[in-house]
Amino acid sequence: MAINEFLLCKTPQAWLDWACVNQDVLLVDHANCEKKAAATAMNLLYRYVAYPELLDKMSQLAREELLHFQQVVSLMTARGIPYVQLSASRYAAGLREQMRKDQHLALIDTLIIGAFVEARSCERFASLAPLLDAELAKFYRSLLRSEGRHFQDYLTLAKLYAKDDISSRIQEFALIEKRLIEAADLEFRFHSGVPDESVCAVNRASQVRANLVR
Amino acid sequence: MAINEFLLCKTPQAWLDWACVNQDVLLVDHANCEKKAAATAMNLLYRYVAYPELLDKMSQLAREELLHFQQVVSLMTARGIPYVQLSASRYAAGLREQMRKDQHLALIDTLIIGAFVEARSCERFASLAPLLDAELAKFYRSLLRSEGRHFQDYLTLAKLYAKDDISSRIQEFALIEKRLIEAADLEFRFHSGVPDESVCAVNRASQVRANLVR
Repeated sequence: MAINEFLLCKTPQAWLDWACVNQDVLLVDHANCEKKAAATAMNLLYRYVAYPELLDKMSQLAREELLHFQQVVSLMTARGIPYVQLSASRYAAGLREQMRKDQHLALIDTLIIGAFVEARSCERFASLAPLLDAELAKFYRSLLRSEGRHFQDYLTLAKLYAKDDISSRIQEFALIEKRLIEAADLEFRFHSGVPDESVCAVNRASQVRANLVR
Repeated sequence: MAINEFLLCKTPQAWLDWACVNQDVLLVDHANCEKKAAATAMNLLYRYVAYPELLDKMSQLAREELLHFQQVVSLMTARGIPYVQLSASRYAAGLREQMRKDQHLALIDTLIIGAFVEARSCERFASLAPLLDAELAKFYRSLLRSEGRHFQDYLTLAKLYAKDDISSRIQEFALIEKRLIEAADLEFRFHSGVPDESVCAVNRASQVRANLVR
């Protein structure tokens, strides 16, 4: 399945504009996302030892995310961006809230959520690349292939281990994901929604002040 | 520093004999050790974001441990060894018990403990290799170089971040590590001590029964 069919909406232009004026936070939160993606895969390695395909794919995925993490941190260091602690966006938590409790069903849901996180990341990297400087654009384009593969891996594993057809469950998550992406957020993060009206007002006020100073 | 100077004792012959008759458990617990080594490194990535050398070395180390994990699991699959859940040995817990609480001192201790775990693993792979079949021997020899490098990385980071000389702290951990390795254990694990007398008695009884059946 293609990513643009899997996701029910494109990243809103308002988020892209927000990202362009928050590039330091974008990089720090991107580093966090890579680390969390590796940690999610690692958790699966602990919880589901009797699933050989999962062990294989998830250890490979965790390795790739850790390499990306290292690459983002090295870019941050080169640009003098400090690695500050940031709160997590409500995106992953909003998806995980929907997880079923049963261990097997929780596995299927985790894999479907993994597919959405990877698909959205991939879509955001592709949408951001043309708006960023050459070095960052090149880096984000270089991530597209592996993030796209991770999306497919998660989806393949979900279908492999599910006893029944999972299309309706995917559809449920797709709607929740769309809602999280289109809702308003107070803080910019890699997976946040669009800026809340109060954030836009603050930005407009700063712009007015900046113009007055000039 | 060389590994054989860092560790205060060699792996006892009794553990090596125990390993040879517990090769399935050896592989399963080895897989667990690789996974835990990756998880330990990942935890450091979360806790110490302001230490760039640590972020760099630990993400590389976690990636390598995950690759080894994948390799052990693939060997287990090829040999039809099921990945069963095993309790952890008291080794890592015994070392971690000694950790100081202060966040900075805890970092130094974690790095010193990391150096001991890697050094002991390296020493055990080297001692086991000549006793195993060709495929396993080759695999264990292939791990020596990276595990040796991990030992050095942990030690270098500990020295880099410690404000004072850490030789006496290393010496304290060296004595505890030696005690854990030479003490008796009821269950065989990759980092267990020597078999307890009761285990030896059971083994001798099985041998007697086997001889009687013949």
